[in-house]
Amino acid sequence: MLEELKKQVYEANMELPRRGLITYTWGNVSGIDREKGLFVIKPSGVEYDLLKPEDMVVIDLNGNKVEGDYNPSSDTPTHLELYKAFPKIGGVVHTHSPWATSWAQAGRSIPCYGTTHADYFYGEIPCARSLTADEINGEYEKNTGLVIIETFNERGIDPMHVPGVLCTNHGPFTWGTDAANAVHNAVVLEEVAKMACRTEILNARVQPAPQVIQDKHFLRKHGANAYYGQIKR
Amino acid sequence: MLEELKKQVYEANMELPRRGLITYTWGNVSGIDREKGLFVIKPSGVEYDLLKPEDMVVIDLNGNKVEGDYNPSSDTPTHLELYKAFPKIGGVVHTHSPWATSWAQAGRSIPCYGTTHADYFYGEIPCARSLTADEINGEYEKNTGLVIIETFNERGIDPMHVPGVLCTNHGPFTWGTDAANAVHNAVVLEEVAKMACRTEILNARVQPAPQVIQDKHFLRKHGANAYYGQIKR
Amino acid sequence: MLEELKKQVYEANMELPRRGLITYTWGNVSGIDREKGLFVIKPSGVEYDLLKPEDMVVIDLNGNKVEGDYNPSSDTPTHLELYKAFPKIGGVVHTHSPWATSWAQAGRSIPCYGTTHADYFYGEIPCARSLTADEINGEYEKNTGLVIIETFNERGIDPMHVPGVLCTNHGPFTWGTDAANAVHNAVVLEEVAKMACRTEILNARVQPAPQVIQDKHFLRKHGANAYYGQIKR
Amino acid sequence: MLEELKKQVYEANMELPRRGLITYTWGNVSGIDREKGLFVIKPSGVEYDLLKPEDMVVIDLNGNKVEGDYNPSSDTPTHLELYKAFPKIGGVVHTHSPWATSWAQAGRSIPCYGTTHADYFYGEIPCARSLTADEINGEYEKNTGLVIIETFNERGIDPMHVPGVLCTNHGPFTWGTDAANAVHNAVVLEEVAKMACRTEILNARVQPAPQVIQDKHFLRKHGANAYYGQIKR
Repeated sequence: MLEELKKQVYEANMELPRRGLITYTWGNVSGIDREKGLFVIKPSGVEYDLLKPEDMVVIDLNGNKVEGDYNPSSDTPTHLELYKAFPKIGGVVHTHSPWATSWAQAGRSIPCYGTTHADYFYGEIPCARSLTADEINGEYEKNTGLVIIETFNERGIDPMHVPGVLCTNHGPFTWGTDAANAVHNAVVLEEVAKMACRTEILNARVQPAPQVIQDKHFLRKHGANAYYGQIKR
Repeated sequence: MLEELKKQVYEANMELPRRGLITYTWGNVSGIDREKGLFVIKPSGVEYDLLKPEDMVVIDLNGNKVEGDYNPSSDTPTHLELYKAFPKIGGVVHTHSPWATSWAQAGRSIPCYGTTHADYFYGEIPCARSLTADEINGEYEKNTGLVIIETFNERGIDPMHVPGVLCTNHGPFTWGTDAANAVHNAVVLEEVAKMACRTEILNARVQPAPQVIQDKHFLRKHGANAYYGQIKR
Repeated sequence: MLEELKKQVYEANMELPRRGLITYTWGNVSGIDREKGLFVIKPSGVEYDLLKPEDMVVIDLNGNKVEGDYNPSSDTPTHLELYKAFPKIGGVVHTHSPWATSWAQAGRSIPCYGTTHADYFYGEIPCARSLTADEINGEYEKNTGLVIIETFNERGIDPMHVPGVLCTNHGPFTWGTDAANAVHNAVVLEEVAKMACRTEILNARVQPAPQVIQDKHFLRKHGANAYYGQIKR
Repeated sequence: MLEELKKQVYEANMELPRRGLITYTWGNVSGIDREKGLFVIKPSGVEYDLLKPEDMVVIDLNGNKVEGDYNPSSDTPTHLELYKAFPKIGGVVHTHSPWATSWAQAGRSIPCYGTTHADYFYGEIPCARSLTADEINGEYEKNTGLVIIETFNERGIDPMHVPGVLCTNHGPFTWGTDAANAVHNAVVLEEVAKMACRTEILNARVQPAPQVIQDKHFLRKHGANAYYGQIKR
């Protein structure tokens, strides 16, 4: 069942330790088959060395396990909410990557200080509010997803333009067109988070990059007039 | 004698350089056989490249060497005190891992700023007081252990809930259910120490994570209602 | 066509990930054949794993593609302007290397704090001004080159004495006698940028190194009286 | 001639890139044969990949090249002065290792904040004064050595108790009982420099470690009453 997608999601998970985004099992990647309405996610707490494509767990959009020997990642309900609310995304990643997590722990959105950021994220990378005690003691992982969605709705952010978020006191989630692209965005987020911190150390009064340069770089790579790479139009 | 335990302790010691926790021989791991009342520890100052399982030294709970060609780690009396005072621990680690040691040198406990910390350490990771001149000039390594124990007793901390400590002007000790788990906690401590420092750089007025989120994450992985991983109940 | 130069430029590009200067495809190196008036540059957005020497694109000094299956790097017009304005340079590099990019995002020139800097860069490494909205919305990559050139002209800096620049909100460009030497200077710039940031953390009132020591070190390695290395005179 | 010493010095030089202390050729190690009054040093500016034991250059205590195809390191006169003034040292290292160099660029001695430092360096690691213009324009490398020696003499520091120094606006020199031990001390210095910087970030008012703990740790590993490692007495 979904053998090809399982393989893609497995490969995307294995990219997390290779890229230095995770310690031990502190991350998970999923990918969705929109036609079938099923997504595939890493099992919970299994060591990366032991992971195999067939260990991936299949979940439907009601959150039920459809196939798999293991329990799915404990963050599965967060992935589920994101898939339901953001219909264009094809993959979701959660990590505790250290620079992005430091911003999340600081409770701060990451300002756009340059073109590395603007090439991938159109505007600041938002830090979602803390969950309330009720949200934490209730369906915690589901509510984590709902607060992310609230953040994008209230601030009017297109999740395809800003493919990631920080959860206060927790860490980042990113997404993308598929599982591999979501991991790509997780790598970029970590790099951007690192450079933004150092930028502030070097200039305590630094301001975000001008809107015109943010527009230029994002639109150079995205949308109808993109001209970066080998895009054929 | 204790061949299986020696092998486990050897493997746990070898994990220290692989995880980047030590420079040269600046670390040691031990593991205990509670039934026999004996623990196994790395010899002092032997290079990791040359270390073999049979080089591990066996010590009894009076601190006497029972077996081994080498001198045991000079920190052996600290391990001994921890084994005697904390009856549930099965392994102890000491390193000079750079981020945790920087907090120890700064004389500061590490506040819990997020869920990475709360998944493993329930509350702040305490920094034990400096030893007095008499304590230093007397049985220094033993007194290091006694001051750690005093810290947990006076602050009412359960050592199974906070499996690590910082010794002022020195560095961290961690422990766990066995030698491998104690190393695991040493890796987590270093990662948590790094992110806590960067969190403070990013937000000079940051407060610890709310108690409710600390409770949620610690109890999600520990105790009767844990639901993280492949735990069967 | 230009097979030897393509191979050199390919090798110089492959050095970027080996030296940790780039994430994904965030960099490009070119090299020029001054006699033929042609330069060779990396294609845009092709993964390093897949790159081959024959994929390099040949461009003339009017900016026309002369040979190549791929689109050239989107930064090609910047390289072109630098080759036209700085007649002694033989190679150009652009990266988003994290420390240099952090200075660029902070909008600051890198002061010369020591001999590591002075061995390669004679005086501060300038940060070029932001482009205007018109410059950004017009021929952006060409104007990036023109603003770099303006910086060197207005400040009276010899580009062979300071083989690199920071572009505000963007990142570094470096150059050299050939493609490999330009990469060498990119590596040095990153190292110098890192140490300058830490120098300021350690001493908030630090001043640039005295001119006499800057003169000594730069001239020890460069010019008629150089005596570093195995130079035969 | 001195084949065994050349091999030791070669191996010690090759340890510099393996330990991450140098970029390109920014370092040099020498070792001395006190009986013959000759020392062996790396050639200047030769890439590490190409270096061979027989490329090492032999120098006498008047600074004359006695054997070798290459020019010796440009820092040879500094090594020479140190060998003449510090009769117990058997090896000398110079690097631009980034953390130690940042302290040197900041013009600051490294305070002893903990036992990692005290295990190897008894008291602060001094930062030598800037050279005067005359000292720089005269025999620069020789004067670098003389200013180091002045620092130890004026402050009454035993070079066997503090086996390293920072040269303002330049970088560190370390030494030891032989070439390998001098490199060992260079590795320790870099680690200590890193942790001291982070200690100050975490606690802006931090004070040096109490003298009693500095005494304890230094004397635990050095001198007549040492008890660390497998020392037989």
